[in-house]
Amino acid sequence: MGHGGGGALSAELVDGVFAPAFGNPVLAQLADSAVVRLGAARLAFSTDSYVVRPLFFPGGCIGDLAVNGTVNDLAMSGAVPAFLSTAFVLEEGVAMDVVERVAGAVGAAARAAGVTVATGDTKVVESGHGDGVYITTSGIGLVPDGVDIRPQRARPGDAVLVSGPIGLHGVAIMSVREGLEFGVDVASDTAPLAGLVEAMLRVTPDIHVLRDPTRGGLAASLNEIARASGTGVRLTERAVPVPDAVANACAFLGLDPLYVANEGRLVAFVAREHADAVLAAMREHPQGAGAALVGECVEDHPGMVVVSTGLGGTRVVDMPLGEQLPRIC
Amino acid sequence: MGHGGGGALSAELVDGVFAPAFGNPVLAQLADSAVVRLGAARLAFSTDSYVVRPLFFPGGCIGDLAVNGTVNDLAMSGAVPAFLSTAFVLEEGVAMDVVERVAGAVGAAARAAGVTVATGDTKVVESGHGDGVYITTSGIGLVPDGVDIRPQRARPGDAVLVSGPIGLHGVAIMSVREGLEFGVDVASDTAPLAGLVEAMLRVTPDIHVLRDPTRGGLAASLNEIARASGTGVRLTERAVPVPDAVANACAFLGLDPLYVANEGRLVAFVAREHADAVLAAMREHPQGAGAALVGECVEDHPGMVVVSTGLGGTRVVDMPLGEQLPRIC
Repeated sequence: MGHGGGGALSAELVDGVFAPAFGNPVLAQLADSAVVRLGAARLAFSTDSYVVRPLFFPGGCIGDLAVNGTVNDLAMSGAVPAFLSTAFVLEEGVAMDVVERVAGAVGAAARAAGVTVATGDTKVVESGHGDGVYITTSGIGLVPDGVDIRPQRARPGDAVLVSGPIGLHGVAIMSVREGLEFGVDVASDTAPLAGLVEAMLRVTPDIHVLRDPTRGGLAASLNEIARASGTGVRLTERAVPVPDAVANACAFLGLDPLYVANEGRLVAFVAREHADAVLAAMREHPQGAGAALVGECVEDHPGMVVVSTGLGGTRVVDMPLGEQLPRIC
Repeated sequence: MGHGGGGALSAELVDGVFAPAFGNPVLAQLADSAVVRLGAARLAFSTDSYVVRPLFFPGGCIGDLAVNGTVNDLAMSGAVPAFLSTAFVLEEGVAMDVVERVAGAVGAAARAAGVTVATGDTKVVESGHGDGVYITTSGIGLVPDGVDIRPQRARPGDAVLVSGPIGLHGVAIMSVREGLEFGVDVASDTAPLAGLVEAMLRVTPDIHVLRDPTRGGLAASLNEIARASGTGVRLTERAVPVPDAVANACAFLGLDPLYVANEGRLVAFVAREHADAVLAAMREHPQGAGAALVGECVEDHPGMVVVSTGLGGTRVVDMPLGEQLPRIC
């Protein structure tokens, strides 16, 4: 299970098995989406499979997740998401009204994100060889001229911005799984982020890095950026927006909110001189109302993420090995 | 299971559930791939999930199938396939060497087809919620100027061409499933068809329709074309190339070769005046060596496919309801 968790074991699978087998320079970028040239167009292209359990959870379902997740991966390259494909693997015996509700959520989320579902596929597997509904979405979008957003572009001195409170998706899933209840209603943050990214790019096309911290949470995303760019990242713990409900749930379960999945948040690396203006633009956008400056990119400890604790100390934020909770997305 | 078979039940699911939920004019084309405009580029975009059982079969495995299938869907729009995405859903406990062999086959098939695997994803589900490996591939490619290939363009008078012997993929899968053996080695025809399509388009850019008759076989593809174009199709039974091994297996199992799946064949509708030249170009290409003129597009019985039998009679070739064999691809 750990190999699917978005942490070190996932990276091992990609670096050790898939990258050598498929080996090519585009794949080697290891960004949320690939940026490729096709004719005169510069395109972002991305894919994700969604196997979240349960199918319906507070704040959303596998349908909106599958749309927003791929829309967000495209947006993390600065692309304007345009077209999606959806491929369903249905388990024999799944109720038709479940399929209809999920399909309805896909359609509604696509309309909300301003993308067109252009093509699709459906396969059915025998009962006991699936889990109701799996969805794989892929997406394409145009990357505007002058935009070059990728993890390798993090630079010492960059401000690290987060678009809002973290941990809500992971805690929402936990709240309905395994009978855990935290006494507070927590809803997934699943949302499309392309509009927020557009607003940020209007301030400056020179955003260095964007990432949506899904599986593995903020910790995995920041570690990936630190490694790809050969820089260090220093977070200020009390600057990271953690809702009380998330803090309480994490304390109860012995988890660190930095490792909990998000589905409607982004982390941005921006040159210091643009940081205040970008942060202001984020806060004016509904998806960035809770945006915060949470740290900086540093020359020290390249490839490593540390957090300054409230007590004046620092601790290392490692890449997660596997996954705190399987099948979070 | 029938809803995944590519026949009438699949069409019901698409028309009744997915199309209304996602509703838009691009999806309504119902071609193997969507043709969309993005910036200055006209692109084909396609996706398919692969759940074939067993993972390895005579002539190939789920890895080459996943590459060739999506490459072929793009080629059926006349596009030059360029980039693929691959999303793996692995079942917990699947042997790592199985994943490595499948990944190796994906890489080799991509190189053979001249496409780049640009991006990917891996999820892991618990044992008992998958079947070793499911793969969803999506692809994009440029559609050359002046090319407009879609099922709606079939015209009475068009020649109907098939690129080679039919039924090999389906019979190869049957031969290793459920302990069926036919005394003859039959290998899947899985192969990339983009090079063949390029050769055909060099004869004339005005190919009307292309389709790769996978699930549901030639019967499903021709019925879809007849319905989309409001024309009829008349096949000549003895002109359809059916290998002896396929004929024998079908006789034994009570199947009709017209309904058996192919993974390396195409059917083309071409204006009569181009048919001989296109057929000659197909036969010069390795993937079209066994190409044949198998019928014509007619004004009679719009939306319906009939076959002239060797005895001078005709019979209707209906849309299949479900699938002769589940999980053929």
